[in-house]
Amino acid sequence: MKSTQREGIDMIDEISPSPALRTALAYHRAWTSGDLDAAIAYVAADIFCRAPGEDIKGKDAYREYLGGFLQVFTGLTDVAALGDGERALLFYYPHTATTSTAPAAEHFTVREGQIVESLLIFDRLSYAPPQQQ
Amino acid sequence: MKSTQREGIDMIDEISPSPALRTALAYHRAWTSGDLDAAIAYVAADIFCRAPGEDIKGKDAYREYLGGFLQVFTGLTDVAALGDGERALLFYYPHTATTSTAPAAEHFTVREGQIVESLLIFDRLSYAPPQQQ
Repeated sequence: MKSTQREGIDMIDEISPSPALRTALAYHRAWTSGDLDAAIAYVAADIFCRAPGEDIKGKDAYREYLGGFLQVFTGLTDVAALGDGERALLFYYPHTATTSTAPAAEHFTVREGQIVESLLIFDRLSYAPPQQQ
Repeated sequence: MKSTQREGIDMIDEISPSPALRTALAYHRAWTSGDLDAAIAYVAADIFCRAPGEDIKGKDAYREYLGGFLQVFTGLTDVAALGDGERALLFYYPHTATTSTAPAAEHFTVREGQIVESLLIFDRLSYAPPQQQ
């Protein structure tokens, strides 16, 4: 499941002065490794996530959403990860049975080591099974 | 058309040590102000853009794509802009008649002051006229 670009992301983590980016990458590595519990540990109880077509409010609803995506997630190609004080921005290609060339982006707001807000962007049509396109 | 958050983006520009981010923001300000010619001046002749559902190759095709979106673009809320040596990452809400709450993200690769590659991410369904949803 690891991509050849994952090493680059690990290096960013080690040298980054951004605590938000460190938290976001820990979360990102956890869920993309299939460890939903470890990922959700970085999520605030009152997280607000703007996902395509729906707003997700609260850790329980977020866990359900992420867990649902993990059912179809098959691999990862990381692209970029940058952060500053409270924000971290990630770009990556999640792989599914349908596509590995449709990118996703996330804008995290992190406070006290917890993700309090997320803008999650991807094109739903690109992930739809071929018969739905 | 200017949002209340645009000042923040301007400040990032002034203090940013990232030449890629300065180019990306100059491009971003140009097209979001409706100045297609000024925007395209920052685009390399052989740009590769991965847009939702299609890859766009070359400055002429890119100009046509961006010009098409400008026909429906009505305003902007900027969210975040970060960059490093060759890369710039932008998150923002483009406004159209259909939505002003569907975010977009762009990952730019910039060389010698020109955008050579772009990953453009948005959810096509969120921008479709209501009758198509």
